[in-house]
Amino acid sequence: VAKRLEQFKTTIFTEISILALKHKAINLGQGFPNFDGPDFVKNAAIEAIKDGGKNQYARGFGVPQLNAAIAESFKKESGITVNPDTEVTVTSGCTEAIAATMLGLVNPGDEVILFEPFYDSYLATVSMTGATIKTVTLRAPHFAVPEDELRAAFSSKTRAILVNTPHNPTGKVFSRKELELVASLCKEHDALAFADEVYNKLVFKGEHVSLASLDGMYERTVTMNSLGKTFSLTGWKIGWAVAPPHLTWGLRLAHSYLTFATATPFQWAAVEALRAPDSFYTDLIKDYSLKRDILVEGLKSVGFEVYEPEGTYFVMVDHTPFGFENDVAFCKYLIEEVGIAAIPPSVFYRNPEDGKNLIRFAFCKDEQTLRDAVEKLKSKLK
Amino acid sequence: VAKRLEQFKTTIFTEISILALKHKAINLGQGFPNFDGPDFVKNAAIEAIKDGGKNQYARGFGVPQLNAAIAESFKKESGITVNPDTEVTVTSGCTEAIAATMLGLVNPGDEVILFEPFYDSYLATVSMTGATIKTVTLRAPHFAVPEDELRAAFSSKTRAILVNTPHNPTGKVFSRKELELVASLCKEHDALAFADEVYNKLVFKGEHVSLASLDGMYERTVTMNSLGKTFSLTGWKIGWAVAPPHLTWGLRLAHSYLTFATATPFQWAAVEALRAPDSFYTDLIKDYSLKRDILVEGLKSVGFEVYEPEGTYFVMVDHTPFGFENDVAFCKYLIEEVGIAAIPPSVFYRNPEDGKNLIRFAFCKDEQTLRDAVEKLKSKLK
Ligand SMILES: CSCCC(=O)C(=O)O
Ligand SMILES: CSCCC(=O)C(=O)O
Repeated sequence: VAKRLEQFKTTIFTEISILALKHKAINLGQGFPNFDGPDFVKNAAIEAIKDGGKNQYARGFGVPQLNAAIAESFKKESGITVNPDTEVTVTSGCTEAIAATMLGLVNPGDEVILFEPFYDSYLATVSMTGATIKTVTLRAPHFAVPEDELRAAFSSKTRAILVNTPHNPTGKVFSRKELELVASLCKEHDALAFADEVYNKLVFKGEHVSLASLDGMYERTVTMNSLGKTFSLTGWKIGWAVAPPHLTWGLRLAHSYLTFATATPFQWAAVEALRAPDSFYTDLIKDYSLKRDILVEGLKSVGFEVYEPEGTYFVMVDHTPFGFENDVAFCKYLIEEVGIAAIPPSVFYRNPEDGKNLIRFAFCKDEQTLRDAVEKLKSKLK
Repeated sequence: VAKRLEQFKTTIFTEISILALKHKAINLGQGFPNFDGPDFVKNAAIEAIKDGGKNQYARGFGVPQLNAAIAESFKKESGITVNPDTEVTVTSGCTEAIAATMLGLVNPGDEVILFEPFYDSYLATVSMTGATIKTVTLRAPHFAVPEDELRAAFSSKTRAILVNTPHNPTGKVFSRKELELVASLCKEHDALAFADEVYNKLVFKGEHVSLASLDGMYERTVTMNSLGKTFSLTGWKIGWAVAPPHLTWGLRLAHSYLTFATATPFQWAAVEALRAPDSFYTDLIKDYSLKRDILVEGLKSVGFEVYEPEGTYFVMVDHTPFGFENDVAFCKYLIEEVGIAAIPPSVFYRNPEDGKNLIRFAFCKDEQTLRDAVEKLKSKLK
């Protein structure tokens, strides 16, 4: 294995899903729904497959109609008008958007700031670039941005800061004030911002602020999003990056040589998805609020310290009341003895010790599954 | 843009396709069919989309049934039995398999040997690794491997050689003797072989030899293939890499962080595709032989020097009889004045001068389109 990756192991998500299957555990690990996306989107994909001509390579940076639909929804979300042909790039999931952004825009010797805990691909893709990683830790219970530490992380070598809001795995939604601090530091140090906003439609408390919408930020921001989380179609792997032309140029080059293009029929279906009426999003929030409440209340009732999520479909808890050595040991117990799979957050920290008291559960599951999970926890843990 | 990519431009394929559209030219540029793959494969994708549970993240390295089907077809092609769980990785097209193989297995300071002309992603992905590129040029009319030059390209720093057989853009099928030379040099220098064999089912003359099947080679070879070329579904972006566990480990790590997983419904459809009866492949060759003959005869009849392809769905010609300065100028003329789009091969060489007399045409088009293209060439060029 090449040196750039030798510190890494296969992603925790696959590992836990395989274990869940093996032990027939309820899988509250990786963030994929156990229900499918809306029929109008699935039907659009089926029509595209049937329709001669939509099964071959798409334009490398996206089917023109999808680039246009993304530009339109970005306008709604951020107030910014972008050119679909020069500022929007369709990628194979947001994961590829992150990799292409890093490999296309970051040099060895640069510094990249990550908030910790982080989705594991951030660390791996920065490592692929040969840049130096600086981390700023968000600490329980509120996972607030520590201003002094953030200031100290910036330097003349800072190429970019990656901000994931709403935030996986904590469920934190960055406040406008926190994002304004990030923005002012980016401007002061002439740094880029990489904004992973895949959970932007899943906000229960407060409001999602798009980093690019802040004053003077669009020109230095790559905003990434995807179809999977919002439309419960994580397996379709449709993601995208919106960025000004000079940044799009770099990430698109990397994209050209990482995957070249993304599955065409699902791009056509994504066009339909992005035309969903506002009621789709209201219903989504209503539905997910209920799911969140079931799991949060259940976890509290068995004795976890629960950090209530403001957004995403994840909830972090502290498992110390149960007396296990660390998160990995507790996860093993959960899967093997309780029949619930969850993610050990130590993989989201550079120093695994920092995550050892935590566990992340996903609530993107149907109501009954969540109730069953709570029952299992109650009967085995209480 | 990051230094690792600053020498590159967006891929020629997108550029030519956009121009073809603009000038309403017949697109014999990028290698995608203008007809769709078989209904049994498309229907399998539709069933997967309808079937609740096949629209979420797949196992990162592939839907188990697809890994098994790939192992089975690899066995048929190479005689080698592999473990689907530890030696097969599903990727987002062969392009991603190449990127993951490079980023997962090649270090800065290593040397990687490429045969020139080459599919442009090879050069870009080696550049991403920071390795040094050595090229060995295959020269018209036969594009034979120059033994002395190949020997000279190997050194103690050689990490890998990339072999694309059947070969894009020349249509050359590497002979067993040539591959045995490659194999013996790999073993002598303890180098890896990266075998891109996506056109392995498209052979008109001679036989395709899988590099991994040669004595002592499997343990040092990554064999890459895809669904798109064989099943005329290039837009689905299903590719894979087969390699021994220690090499799979490295490329899988990179894959985990480049895209994580590949579109699930198309993986299920790929399982069905790989179960196609032998008659599917016989018909494919019959069909493509006819297409090849139409285009090759047509190109000869208007005065090109044609290098008859033994495999792939591309044909290279020399355009010097028409008196243009270089391939780019001739391509421009072809698109704008003749109404035919083709690829200027200078992009497939490190020194563009080396490709300036050549043009690549694709014949993965229905018979009528090919006949129309020949008519246009005859009326405008003869
Ligand atoms: C490829 S996993 C993407 C993120 C996610 O779903 C998770 O954190 O569980
Ligand atoms: C992504 S382009 C893949 C190769 C091909 O189709 C071509 O060379 O035209």
